[in-house]
Amino acid sequence: MPESPIRKLVPFAEDAKKRGISVFHLNIGQPDIETPEAALKAVKNNKIKVLSYARSEGSEAYRKKLGQYYRQNNINVNEKDIVVTTGGSEALLFTLGSITDFGDEVIIPEPFYANYNGFSVANGIKVVPIVSSINDDFALPPIEEFEKLISKRTKAILICNPGNPTGYLYSKEELEKLKDLALKHDLFLIADEVYREFVYEGIEHHSIMSLDGLDEHAIVIDSVSKRYSMCGARIGCIVSKNKDLIQTALKYAQARLSSPTYALLASEAALDTPPEYFEKVIEEYDERRIVLINALSEIKGVKVSRPKGAFYCIAELPVDDADDFAQWMLEKFNDQGETVMVAPASGFYSTPGSGKNQIRIAYVLNKESLVRSVELLKLALEQYPN
Amino acid sequence: MPESPIRKLVPFAEDAKKRGISVFHLNIGQPDIETPEAALKAVKNNKIKVLSYARSEGSEAYRKKLGQYYRQNNINVNEKDIVVTTGGSEALLFTLGSITDFGDEVIIPEPFYANYNGFSVANGIKVVPIVSSINDDFALPPIEEFEKLISKRTKAILICNPGNPTGYLYSKEELEKLKDLALKHDLFLIADEVYREFVYEGIEHHSIMSLDGLDEHAIVIDSVSKRYSMCGARIGCIVSKNKDLIQTALKYAQARLSSPTYALLASEAALDTPPEYFEKVIEEYDERRIVLINALSEIKGVKVSRPKGAFYCIAELPVDDADDFAQWMLEKFNDQGETVMVAPASGFYSTPGSGKNQIRIAYVLNKESLVRSVELLKLALEQYPN
Repeated sequence: MPESPIRKLVPFAEDAKKRGISVFHLNIGQPDIETPEAALKAVKNNKIKVLSYARSEGSEAYRKKLGQYYRQNNINVNEKDIVVTTGGSEALLFTLGSITDFGDEVIIPEPFYANYNGFSVANGIKVVPIVSSINDDFALPPIEEFEKLISKRTKAILICNPGNPTGYLYSKEELEKLKDLALKHDLFLIADEVYREFVYEGIEHHSIMSLDGLDEHAIVIDSVSKRYSMCGARIGCIVSKNKDLIQTALKYAQARLSSPTYALLASEAALDTPPEYFEKVIEEYDERRIVLINALSEIKGVKVSRPKGAFYCIAELPVDDADDFAQWMLEKFNDQGETVMVAPASGFYSTPGSGKNQIRIAYVLNKESLVRSVELLKLALEQYPN
Repeated sequence: MPESPIRKLVPFAEDAKKRGISVFHLNIGQPDIETPEAALKAVKNNKIKVLSYARSEGSEAYRKKLGQYYRQNNINVNEKDIVVTTGGSEALLFTLGSITDFGDEVIIPEPFYANYNGFSVANGIKVVPIVSSINDDFALPPIEEFEKLISKRTKAILICNPGNPTGYLYSKEELEKLKDLALKHDLFLIADEVYREFVYEGIEHHSIMSLDGLDEHAIVIDSVSKRYSMCGARIGCIVSKNKDLIQTALKYAQARLSSPTYALLASEAALDTPPEYFEKVIEEYDERRIVLINALSEIKGVKVSRPKGAFYCIAELPVDDADDFAQWMLEKFNDQGETVMVAPASGFYSTPGSGKNQIRIAYVLNKESLVRSVELLKLALEQYPN
């Protein structure tokens, strides 16, 4: 298992804190937003006496309610098309395990969520990256470039929509192109859609499950973590109309027995969250996004992508080695006892040397902290000796 | 992923219930014992507002308390020797992933916990079974037999102590023999010790971690599931003095981000469970064990092992195919609207054809239900046409 550049920074952040430095964490996707009351209450008021196993695939009641949620989101599935998992992580792990053999390949536009690589390694799968660029906000690379990478071992194309770490939101047209390619070469199209709700500038999110004719090839990875700000629940699911996939994933689910029971209570209750909750949360993220992008754009030499979804952006810095810079900010820099921790983007690329001058910023802090964080970043860039 | 013979029975049990038949479940290790009050309370009284990720390896506070628990159990470890996992299942998955490459082998005395096979398949590992026998209550097979099975690809020996599905409790001498073998061939000795507390007839449980000189080779798989009757928590851990193993397992833990936060609260609080809880629970299991064994022994043609630990026993039935018999009990048999579901033991063997006339019984029901279940089993055996 490879170690991520973010993880390597953790001891430096801990050390900084020991020296009394306040660290603003722009490095992880742990929202500060409160979990919906309905979810918290369901756990507080639980009547459990024997904390038993849940059904391996999730209770029928929960899956039915999930089906309802998906149908409201233009994804025409029911409880039979869903396997509940222990986080989106496990959903991806089971999916990859179900559709690949040792040595098979999965094509992923990079930069991509670092753990995709970890899960692939764990399954003996080779990740084949295809580079997307900050110059067009990490839009889908030309479909011909995908096609060049398809081999006999290719089993799937994996996208994250909206994207972590890019914030890019794929258009219907881009998804249609991926669909055609998947059908032409009989590949699975896997979409991690855990940030579905978080889209801005009035643009609509399109699920791959809403594309006509892709039923047998589309697999959605989902999670309650970001949607309801409950990363600690560890509840996700696999959604697909492909019966074989669902049946194989179910066997994986049975092997690990069950997802956590308390978290399932919270997740089922979270589905009753009123729309106003999301309106407020999305408004909050959107304001942060604009504050962040504007502030970053004003720093000389910084190029920033304009995210249309999720709560991340990639920024290109006027440094040669963002890993080194990020470490330096924790080790050597502070302004009035404050510094900032960012995620070096190299961890989101699998092509060696790519993204060396980029960082990922998660806008999961309040606006005031974001403004101060960018100010710290600016000062740090001015003082950075390398 | 292979499907277990128990899982195959589930639809028949569901169908029986639809026809109004009461089914006594002797087939799964889901205890009916109440979860300790301390654990339940910790969750009910939680003050969480943002359900955040936990630390990937478990909080320092929890691991410190776990260290204390282990030291009380003659296992000299501290927080640095522990990686908290999402259930014992994940502990085993991470362990196998950390110590093996694709195509490596693990030797396991059979019958063994069916999911060991599932986790091995998921990791591309070959399970090499070594048969133990009901005639000596599934004691450790001769160590020479183990040695014959060791190849260049052998990475570990895996035992469950006390055993699921056998209830067998390994003696200090047996463990010493395994230790010598592990050291001689530089293999890991992995022990699933999740039933540590549940031992009877005044016999002591010995952990592999209490054996001198095995520090670099011993890995313990643990879980709160059975200990505190909280299978639905999905919290376990890996315990080892081998730093490389712990470090690699930690990377797996980081890839899946975190274990479930509510369940961690419950698990940490569960460590404050007073000794009286265990005294009562063990007494209850012990009484059930005796009731069950005695009742089974009285059925003509039934041979039953005498378990000294956990809460399972294997019984040999006067039938050719226990899979068929178990299905028949659900499909065709009832007495006064009642029947019983057992686990065909074939699912616990990987040698084809082994255990065909055996079943596993979990004594997780109250004594009255156990007596009635065995009565039903007896009636069913009398009426079974095959």
